[in-house]
Amino acid sequence: MTNSTESIQAAQADLPAATAGSRLDPWVSAYASRASSMTASEIRSLFAVASRPEVVSLAGGMPYVSALPLDEMADTIASMIRERGATALQYGSGQGDPVLREQITEVMAEVGIHAHPDDIVVTTGSQMALDLVVRVFCDPGDVVLVESPSYVGALGVFRAYECNVVHVAMDEQGLNPVALEETIKRLQVEGKKIKMIYTIPSYHNPAGITQGPDRRKDILSIAKSNGILILEDDPYGLLGFDGVVPRAIRADDADGVVYLGSFSKTIASGLRVGWALAPHGVREKLVLAAESAILCPSNYAQFTVSTYLATKPWRDQVAVFRDVYRERRDALLDTMKVLMPAGTTWTVPTGGFYSWVTLPEGMDSRAMLPRAVNALVAYVPGTGFYVDGQGRQSLRLSYCYPTPERIKEGVRRLASVVEQELELIATFGPDALPHTEMPNFSSTPAPDVR
Amino acid sequence: MTNSTESIQAAQADLPAATAGSRLDPWVSAYASRASSMTASEIRSLFAVASRPEVVSLAGGMPYVSALPLDEMADTIASMIRERGATALQYGSGQGDPVLREQITEVMAEVGIHAHPDDIVVTTGSQMALDLVVRVFCDPGDVVLVESPSYVGALGVFRAYECNVVHVAMDEQGLNPVALEETIKRLQVEGKKIKMIYTIPSYHNPAGITQGPDRRKDILSIAKSNGILILEDDPYGLLGFDGVVPRAIRADDADGVVYLGSFSKTIASGLRVGWALAPHGVREKLVLAAESAILCPSNYAQFTVSTYLATKPWRDQVAVFRDVYRERRDALLDTMKVLMPAGTTWTVPTGGFYSWVTLPEGMDSRAMLPRAVNALVAYVPGTGFYVDGQGRQSLRLSYCYPTPERIKEGVRRLASVVEQELELIATFGPDALPHTEMPNFSSTPAPDVR
Repeated sequence: MTNSTESIQAAQADLPAATAGSRLDPWVSAYASRASSMTASEIRSLFAVASRPEVVSLAGGMPYVSALPLDEMADTIASMIRERGATALQYGSGQGDPVLREQITEVMAEVGIHAHPDDIVVTTGSQMALDLVVRVFCDPGDVVLVESPSYVGALGVFRAYECNVVHVAMDEQGLNPVALEETIKRLQVEGKKIKMIYTIPSYHNPAGITQGPDRRKDILSIAKSNGILILEDDPYGLLGFDGVVPRAIRADDADGVVYLGSFSKTIASGLRVGWALAPHGVREKLVLAAESAILCPSNYAQFTVSTYLATKPWRDQVAVFRDVYRERRDALLDTMKVLMPAGTTWTVPTGGFYSWVTLPEGMDSRAMLPRAVNALVAYVPGTGFYVDGQGRQSLRLSYCYPTPERIKEGVRRLASVVEQELELIATFGPDALPHTEMPNFSSTPAPDVR
Repeated sequence: MTNSTESIQAAQADLPAATAGSRLDPWVSAYASRASSMTASEIRSLFAVASRPEVVSLAGGMPYVSALPLDEMADTIASMIRERGATALQYGSGQGDPVLREQITEVMAEVGIHAHPDDIVVTTGSQMALDLVVRVFCDPGDVVLVESPSYVGALGVFRAYECNVVHVAMDEQGLNPVALEETIKRLQVEGKKIKMIYTIPSYHNPAGITQGPDRRKDILSIAKSNGILILEDDPYGLLGFDGVVPRAIRADDADGVVYLGSFSKTIASGLRVGWALAPHGVREKLVLAAESAILCPSNYAQFTVSTYLATKPWRDQVAVFRDVYRERRDALLDTMKVLMPAGTTWTVPTGGFYSWVTLPEGMDSRAMLPRAVNALVAYVPGTGFYVDGQGRQSLRLSYCYPTPERIKEGVRRLASVVEQELELIATFGPDALPHTEMPNFSSTPAPDVR
């Protein structure tokens, strides 16, 4: 117990300059241990610059909600408020609206899941579902296995709960089963507690890779034989470009998988409606954790989704989104093929929002970012998708939000930045590049990088 | 690391009967330490019964949202979607919409607070703000000082983060400064880390008490001289019945108080829009914690609140709510005065939703609840508002939701249940009462008891 705010400030007067930013905070010594992992990255201010209209942002994961029929939705929502406003504007169930949970089972049937509405918990976006699962399962130091690379927002949650995040290699089919098994064995020998395998099997963020059916079976089998929970994150599952909807891992195992779903990409991200489907005992814990976290999800947002699902041809709308994103993916890949310097490689996503680009040997995507933003194009450096400093040679490009023309222009700008860096390296060696030191990427996702 | 799901189940086969409920859960040994505090109470099933229409529920804290002009709101929301749908349905800032945060400063000016929008974090209801503050400040075992009694939803959060909750006595002016100072001294001597004082100064839930201006000054002064943060929870501040709006504690100290506000009672609880106003350094941590928890609050709900504040006479609507609740409070108090057996006492709330009733000596509100529900009236037993088993002789009555006529009928039923219990005790002694053992009250609020 410190005796006064003043004495806390006094005690900090001789802190080193590196922590000067927190010197103004009289509560700095009162925070919980977990708060030390909650640090903002300077890269966030760079993204503030990158949100200027003249910059082509290939960084953000914002869905193209302008493709929605806004006038129709306005009418539908108005009717919903007129007819059911007294309930829509009231507190609701902590677990989520029963009618919506029933509808969610129909949505999940598209990815092969047959579930009971009682095993679903509706959340403020699937990010909250992720937070709740980790809250329920992970003590500080517990191991979470993640892909290499993995979703920045999930890494932020694991860090917030002081988990020990261990990356497992991917190949062109996604999470590599041999590497997974080796990692598990090694950690077991070390006596570590492995609490879950976090995976995005379909249209991976950021890798743009999809696990095939056999790969999914292998991963599930390894998880089960080791008694490890799979946390399957599936926000993009319905956004495949080739008429194929990958079967969820959860479709083949109800007891060993927590499945996270979201309406952010199939309807609208601004509603913040996602869900977890969990084994029954886990679901009970999740509901209690959810009530502690927010009392109950918004009836207003839930009724909006529910009314939309019941009255709109939502599958047709998802098809519209697929067409929009396929065209944009093509714009990205076709232009990269023509313009990116030799030695650059990238994944070819068959759905979703992202391609993972690997730059020629010796390049550093994080160091390059300020120069890219200066050339009016933004991306997310690969290091953001690792907890251990990997990813310097890679970056994530998203094609979900800008128009195809803007995407082409963005790639043109990016290709020319990469070329300039390569020329400098070729002529003067890697040290010729201006060195812009960047801190480790944000422990939580910046608003623009989800 | 357990080797397989099957072996976990096998290992539990010989567990004692008391844990039979969890025997079906193969993940029971995989949960985090904090999950052990996440237990549902059997009282929840009782509330499921109590939600039948024939039961008069004086238990819930649901605002009377039917008093809202639903048709007008439907039109306003529809225009908002038509004009700004592409933004309203999109991801937004993790900290919350800047326009709404500016408007929130105007709302807080009503309770005497002059703040900068940059120090506000918008959350999924103020429950989430509470969760974030505790997440940022509290390690397991840290002490949180709370009133006697205190809000059940806050106690759930403190328990979820494994805090050491210590109750401090109240008197007719609220949190007692002498008791507060004694408790702090005692805990300091014991070497405990006191992280915050959680208080609801205005129209307390559940006590129905309001701190006067001098009382607030005393509490602030004690907190400051001991370097302890005040967490001021103020959902009811604008709902005073006598034309008085109590000045918030935060109005007199920007550095030592985190203030929690909510639109749940002034507009609509189903929107789930609340906020925290925090000292600058704390605010930074809260934003990072919020992004990790939900990425960003719903633009849809925020724009709805923002449009409502900008286009509707919201102060007039709050005045309507005040009139509604004043009439209902009068119905409750007047009927209790006439009908409740001698020896029963209650607080006289000057605003808000609740009165705290203390039964005659020897009575047990928790044991009585099943019999009350049987007589078609429900309340929340006092034990729910303590972590330590206090409160058996008390109960919370809420007058916010049922009509005055229903409230009168509810009190009639309750009075007759109390009378019957008293007669049994008088004739045969306390052991004559049927003993219905109840587990400790839920660690999280049941949907109906917020």
